[in-house]
Amino acid sequence: MSISKKIKASISQSSMIRKMFEAGIALKKTHGADKVYDFSLGNPNVDHPREFKRELIRVADQEIALKHGYTPNAGYLETRQAVAEKISKTTGVKINADHVVMSCGAGGALNVILKSLLDPGDEVIILKPFFVEYPFYIENYNGVVKYVSTKPDFSLDPDAISKVITRKTKAIIINSPNNPTGKVYSKKNIEDLARLLREKSRVLNKPVYLIADEPYTEIVFDGVTVPSILKAYQNSIIAYSYSKTLSLPGERIGYIAVHPKIHDADDLVNALILCTRIMGFVNAPALMQRIVANLQHITVDVNIYQKKRDLLCNGLAKAGYKFPKPQGAFYLFVKSPIPDDVEFVKMLLKHNILVVPGSGFGCPGYFRIAFCVDDPTILNSMDGFAAVIKECQ
Amino acid sequence: MSISKKIKASISQSSMIRKMFEAGIALKKTHGADKVYDFSLGNPNVDHPREFKRELIRVADQEIALKHGYTPNAGYLETRQAVAEKISKTTGVKINADHVVMSCGAGGALNVILKSLLDPGDEVIILKPFFVEYPFYIENYNGVVKYVSTKPDFSLDPDAISKVITRKTKAIIINSPNNPTGKVYSKKNIEDLARLLREKSRVLNKPVYLIADEPYTEIVFDGVTVPSILKAYQNSIIAYSYSKTLSLPGERIGYIAVHPKIHDADDLVNALILCTRIMGFVNAPALMQRIVANLQHITVDVNIYQKKRDLLCNGLAKAGYKFPKPQGAFYLFVKSPIPDDVEFVKMLLKHNILVVPGSGFGCPGYFRIAFCVDDPTILNSMDGFAAVIKECQ
Repeated sequence: MSISKKIKASISQSSMIRKMFEAGIALKKTHGADKVYDFSLGNPNVDHPREFKRELIRVADQEIALKHGYTPNAGYLETRQAVAEKISKTTGVKINADHVVMSCGAGGALNVILKSLLDPGDEVIILKPFFVEYPFYIENYNGVVKYVSTKPDFSLDPDAISKVITRKTKAIIINSPNNPTGKVYSKKNIEDLARLLREKSRVLNKPVYLIADEPYTEIVFDGVTVPSILKAYQNSIIAYSYSKTLSLPGERIGYIAVHPKIHDADDLVNALILCTRIMGFVNAPALMQRIVANLQHITVDVNIYQKKRDLLCNGLAKAGYKFPKPQGAFYLFVKSPIPDDVEFVKMLLKHNILVVPGSGFGCPGYFRIAFCVDDPTILNSMDGFAAVIKECQ
Repeated sequence: MSISKKIKASISQSSMIRKMFEAGIALKKTHGADKVYDFSLGNPNVDHPREFKRELIRVADQEIALKHGYTPNAGYLETRQAVAEKISKTTGVKINADHVVMSCGAGGALNVILKSLLDPGDEVIILKPFFVEYPFYIENYNGVVKYVSTKPDFSLDPDAISKVITRKTKAIIINSPNNPTGKVYSKKNIEDLARLLREKSRVLNKPVYLIADEPYTEIVFDGVTVPSILKAYQNSIIAYSYSKTLSLPGERIGYIAVHPKIHDADDLVNALILCTRIMGFVNAPALMQRIVANLQHITVDVNIYQKKRDLLCNGLAKAGYKFPKPQGAFYLFVKSPIPDDVEFVKMLLKHNILVVPGSGFGCPGYFRIAFCVDDPTILNSMDGFAAVIKECQ
């Protein structure tokens, strides 16, 4: 063997989703793309806001010496100031540019945060169902993943979380609005978690960090708002991405923001900056840093996603599927009509419908629909969804 | 302690260069930026080629649905094809898009390569003087760094390399044109290394990979060309960046290319793609991928760097400094007139001249001048350089 054994093992583990993906490509070739209903990927299909393109063209045309040179590892001061102002305004917790490190999306942000925090064997709690990349991110730094279930309505379960916190617990990662459930944790739910973490930190005499993965904060429906974790908990760190807010996941731009009173703030921010550098990110893409600085309050048209959600929820409910209605993001986490979700996903595949089994998110018995697709894909898939649930009855 | 112990230790180790950097900022505040001669950073000061801006504006204005969406983890097929064509043409080794993975610069590329290859305890050889980030990159994946000196003229020393190759050796990293010496390894030198690696791979019955860090390939002087490692050695991997070729290090765009007959090619490329994903890079920035696809044969005006090199070399030689004339890149590695290079660097600092001690590159007794600065900085620093060498006599 020549490649890393750990990576070799990860490649085989990942192969189920890859096979699904390859099956999709084959299906599209055979039947035509419009006859295949691909709900497998969270790649936003709502186009970026007009303001983004306007700003891109303006910045592209600007004459600035060495405009595309290295930025400070933490990012441009102007961009970090703009981010700090926005966070201060929306959360009521005053932070400044020193508490912000620009990152290559939320994926880059989470990796930088975990590398900064973890010693080998340190434990990080994630909640089932979880974003499929979290275990990789934690194990990248020889951390140990501790899985905790959420409640039946996918809200946080502080009692269950309490039971797995040990001396080795370094952090917990939460994601609200949630991928794959669309759940937005309530203010009370977050405050209960914060109370638990404060109590545990006191008893253990060391901080248990709350890491909030927040790429979907602005993608919320029916007037729901996402409670601020900075407001609720001092030892909190935000991993943010513009990927969904501005529909530019391919451009890899986001940030890390820490609570101004976080434990060992200076050390932590220096660690975040060092890790950004030595992991080879070096700095978040320079051009995108300039652009997002001026787009702090711009968001894609969320109504488009809300309409897609309604279209999908109405259709699936009518066909007899059971699911909690998503309050944000663009995922629906549906109860599989048969216990074996992988088998059910294969049944859908026969009707050219691609979704991801809940097992991939640590939650067998469910499947995930990513509804960031065009309306005809949703509408034309309904016959297939209805036919498959009937086959199960 | 709350942050990672390893990262905490790295922060203190890095502090010398940071202190130098901070000293520079303080000096510029006190004396004015034009009175401080900052040769400490390899941030290209030659502006990007006209073609880059033209292409940036063209692509920015293009109407393509979801233009900024996720790309495949390996990068756009069109971009990888363009890269493969260029490599095939310039090296004579026919590769295709399947052998290319787009990356976030060479720093990102090297991290992805090392994570793909290394099991804990695997050894990676680097050559003194070395780019300061290599030890971090290797230790990120629990690899063990093995240091080998180059010859007095900074060329590769196959006999010395031979002595450190063991069962645990996974790879050797070379960098030509070299940072910090400006050395370009000759065709014969590369072929001697390749012969050694082939022989060792045969005896050990496992490949020893040759990783070429090639951000400076196009920054060469006096008609020198950089011999192709693909041509010389089958188990070779290129980490390339457009940072210097197009003067856009802040945009984080580069690629990994593997020899088409590299050991376990499929596994290795799958590992590179998986690691790009799970390390949080996800994909190289999408917009830049589109742009560089059409700029494969465009390069900054290298004559500008060559003139700076000559200006600097002539001035320093006249003052009595000893150094090999750089054949590429934009660094000069100068013998310190006194054995203690850190002390000498402090003496230069008193004349507002900022350079980096050779100790930082594993090579005490030297210092590095990054000459990617404007001509007046070079010219106006000469009195200071001359005064300090006199103080040593």
